[in-house]
Amino acid sequence: MAKTFTAFNPETGNSVGAEIVEWDQVQVLAAIKSADQVKSAIANLSPIDRANLLENIANEIELEKEKIATCANQETALPMARLTGEVMRTVVQLRNFANFVRTGEHFNAIIDLADSNYLPVARPDLRKTLQPLGVVAVFAASNFPLAFSVAGGDSASALAAGCPVIVKAHPSHPNTCELIFSAIQRALAKSGLPKQTFAIVQGINPQITHWLATADEITAVGFTGSPLVGKLLVDLATKRKNPIPVFAEMGSLNPVFFTDAALNGKASELAKLAMESALLGSGQFCTKPGILIVPTGKNGDEFVKEISNITSAAKVAPLLNAGIASRYTDAVTKLSSSPGLQVIAGVKNETGYSVTPTVFVVDWKDINKHDQLLEEHFGPTTVIIRALQNEFVEIAKSLGGQLTAAIHATADEIANTVDSGVPQLIAQISQIAGRLIFNGFPTSVSVTAAMQHGGQWPASSTHTTSVGLDAIYRFLRPVVYQGFPDKALPAQLQNANPYKIFRKVNGVRSDAPLT
Amino acid sequence: MAKTFTAFNPETGNSVGAEIVEWDQVQVLAAIKSADQVKSAIANLSPIDRANLLENIANEIELEKEKIATCANQETALPMARLTGEVMRTVVQLRNFANFVRTGEHFNAIIDLADSNYLPVARPDLRKTLQPLGVVAVFAASNFPLAFSVAGGDSASALAAGCPVIVKAHPSHPNTCELIFSAIQRALAKSGLPKQTFAIVQGINPQITHWLATADEITAVGFTGSPLVGKLLVDLATKRKNPIPVFAEMGSLNPVFFTDAALNGKASELAKLAMESALLGSGQFCTKPGILIVPTGKNGDEFVKEISNITSAAKVAPLLNAGIASRYTDAVTKLSSSPGLQVIAGVKNETGYSVTPTVFVVDWKDINKHDQLLEEHFGPTTVIIRALQNEFVEIAKSLGGQLTAAIHATADEIANTVDSGVPQLIAQISQIAGRLIFNGFPTSVSVTAAMQHGGQWPASSTHTTSVGLDAIYRFLRPVVYQGFPDKALPAQLQNANPYKIFRKVNGVRSDAPLT
Repeated sequence: MAKTFTAFNPETGNSVGAEIVEWDQVQVLAAIKSADQVKSAIANLSPIDRANLLENIANEIELEKEKIATCANQETALPMARLTGEVMRTVVQLRNFANFVRTGEHFNAIIDLADSNYLPVARPDLRKTLQPLGVVAVFAASNFPLAFSVAGGDSASALAAGCPVIVKAHPSHPNTCELIFSAIQRALAKSGLPKQTFAIVQGINPQITHWLATADEITAVGFTGSPLVGKLLVDLATKRKNPIPVFAEMGSLNPVFFTDAALNGKASELAKLAMESALLGSGQFCTKPGILIVPTGKNGDEFVKEISNITSAAKVAPLLNAGIASRYTDAVTKLSSSPGLQVIAGVKNETGYSVTPTVFVVDWKDINKHDQLLEEHFGPTTVIIRALQNEFVEIAKSLGGQLTAAIHATADEIANTVDSGVPQLIAQISQIAGRLIFNGFPTSVSVTAAMQHGGQWPASSTHTTSVGLDAIYRFLRPVVYQGFPDKALPAQLQNANPYKIFRKVNGVRSDAPLT
Repeated sequence: MAKTFTAFNPETGNSVGAEIVEWDQVQVLAAIKSADQVKSAIANLSPIDRANLLENIANEIELEKEKIATCANQETALPMARLTGEVMRTVVQLRNFANFVRTGEHFNAIIDLADSNYLPVARPDLRKTLQPLGVVAVFAASNFPLAFSVAGGDSASALAAGCPVIVKAHPSHPNTCELIFSAIQRALAKSGLPKQTFAIVQGINPQITHWLATADEITAVGFTGSPLVGKLLVDLATKRKNPIPVFAEMGSLNPVFFTDAALNGKASELAKLAMESALLGSGQFCTKPGILIVPTGKNGDEFVKEISNITSAAKVAPLLNAGIASRYTDAVTKLSSSPGLQVIAGVKNETGYSVTPTVFVVDWKDINKHDQLLEEHFGPTTVIIRALQNEFVEIAKSLGGQLTAAIHATADEIANTVDSGVPQLIAQISQIAGRLIFNGFPTSVSVTAAMQHGGQWPASSTHTTSVGLDAIYRFLRPVVYQGFPDKALPAQLQNANPYKIFRKVNGVRSDAPLT
């Protein structure tokens, strides 16, 4: 008899939704093989047809917005307003990729015509384009049941690139995954594409991760989750006979630095905003500010006092699942027993997967006395580091890669008209983080062309982004056609330019046909 | 006393040139640290100043063209004409990167202005640019003492990206490496850059590879060489606390397929061209055609007969070093003793590192009887596979990743107006190779924007290119600045657009300043 599992309602800890059947290895490998066999269908779509597919998926999801959000709410306990917003973020993301694919920019078409006078030797006709990799495995994240799940950023960018996708559904929101999967299937049918182009794998068996990462036909992996699993995926992929890229987004401390001048007169206001960001979604964001670097002195003291007031009264919604809740509580308990660390505990709600928001305060000179303080702790906690402002660069140097790093400073400080060390701090954090924020907080990631969601290891495993249009390039690879007859070229490289896209021809950008 | 080594003249096997002092670990790590300490100098150059640096390097090398080629000729036994051509290729490559950097295109500047009406939530001001990684380790290749060595494609693209470079000089041409290093040092001085921006490490100690790949300040590795060392580098880089990208180009079989129709009336001519490509540089090219897939039947027989005639009389220049020569001879000896394999041996020249050109002929149905036949054998050998034309797709499917794949067919076949299987073959080889060639041979790699030199594993370790302008992107990473005051932004993102570069502003390409 097939094994089954269910989702749980984090508010109660009770089982919720349908019994979900666990996939076995034979089923997983068959789904991958089927996707590989039909891969040319999505790969060969014209830009307009591929864009229409993405639009169709967006429309099918939007049509069920309320139903999807309601289902996700039962499985995740995230608020309805957040979830309907997240559905729309997912929809907008698909539409952004549709608009991008329609331009053909993702082909990065470069044509260098034959040139007998080229130096140092004559040049043949060379026409380069990006082509889809093939079947991509995507791992849904627990904390974004829509925007980083079945139709989230990884899937959207892989489909936009022309790759079939196999998603490992997240066992904390399997019913939401099924709803999105059905929407995608309806869109595939409308677009006349084989249903095997997209599959979800359900299960709680950790071996599924191995099956997906090592299957012959899988050409790349998109992952959002813990450094532990991210590193495992990188290791599995590297040990393959044919290693494949793993695009793992593995979290981050997201340091926020405050100068004394920035806090002056605004300590209380900034403390409120910092805690709002840190406790958003019960602290279950990869961009949660996990450390606040606060200067010693009166302004910093006022900031910490306000944080303490807010935290002591703070109560948060339950965490996403039992595992996350118990790992959070274990980590906080362990840190709380560390001597000489100031611990500010909030209000515990006893039901379901509820936990106690907790803030730790430590002097920079004591940082090494406390093990694991500078690791990511998923959930409603943050660490305040008190330090001299002239120690900020040293602190930044001690940190690993980050998704984001923020700095609160004055215009004078950043322009270096006063000796603040702020420009040096910006230079240093630009070495480790993918997104630098001035006078703001890291939560809220805009889905736009300029977004960068990824930083140095361990924030992400590669120098790519998992949010924004550039995410598409993770699932494409360049191929150049040398001396090919026009008719045998991919359409985007043909003389007539049938897709009417911009190409770089002999170094000049042009959408004109070639004669 | 410091250990020393020398180069050897492959014509004689005798020591040639100066005694070279072997670097120890302390020296290597000190050079890396020094490069890291001065990295902001090259990183912060304006596009014009960075282009001028590359031009200066090109000019300094060109000024010593004869001297450099003469030195390389003594160390490698490659012909003078090839080496002077290779000096010019190296010079042209640096100038191409200079021209590219001058446009600022490598910043990939994307500006999304703040938009309170943006969906699903208001968008802050986001400005994204590519930034240099930091110190890059480059491994010089034996077979291109200039174009893939100290100032070769990896170094040129890393410098163009704004990264300091530490090159592991190749012990088969250490004096050539010193000459190029001196030219680069003169150029750095002319550009007012710290000399620590560029260093070469000399030595034959295999530990140097480990020191470079695991040093804290190394941010990326560029490598051209064997799959064995390439894989070692990937493993070392993956096991670091902070894994870094390894851009390894590890060679390829470069299959060439001939249809029966393509050979009809041209078998003899194509055989001549095939052997010219296979024996070029004594077969020491990463793009050497290592397998020729030839249809059964009269035309194929005529092709093989001509290859046999050419090979029996063929004599080649000695190989690059004693190790390459002995590995070649061992492999050829082993394969030659394999039963049922037709062996066509050329003429052996007994001096120095000379070897015997050798061609093997095998039926596709017997391919599995012969171990290592489908592996790359560096040197003047190629394998002819006889097969039915309708087996070509199956053969292509059995191959690993390739730098190139070529197909000789008629216009009718490629247009699919006759049932030849050629379009299917092209579709299949586009899955494994980075460069597809129609009616041509893989040697000769044009240094141009559209070039792709890299393919699926094991041809290369990533989906990047080591030749052509796109090589620069290996050494850059994206960083987005959110909500920054104009003056605190990198110049390429400032409102005034001081570099006058094209940027994508709210989705529209523009070189206008922002108001």
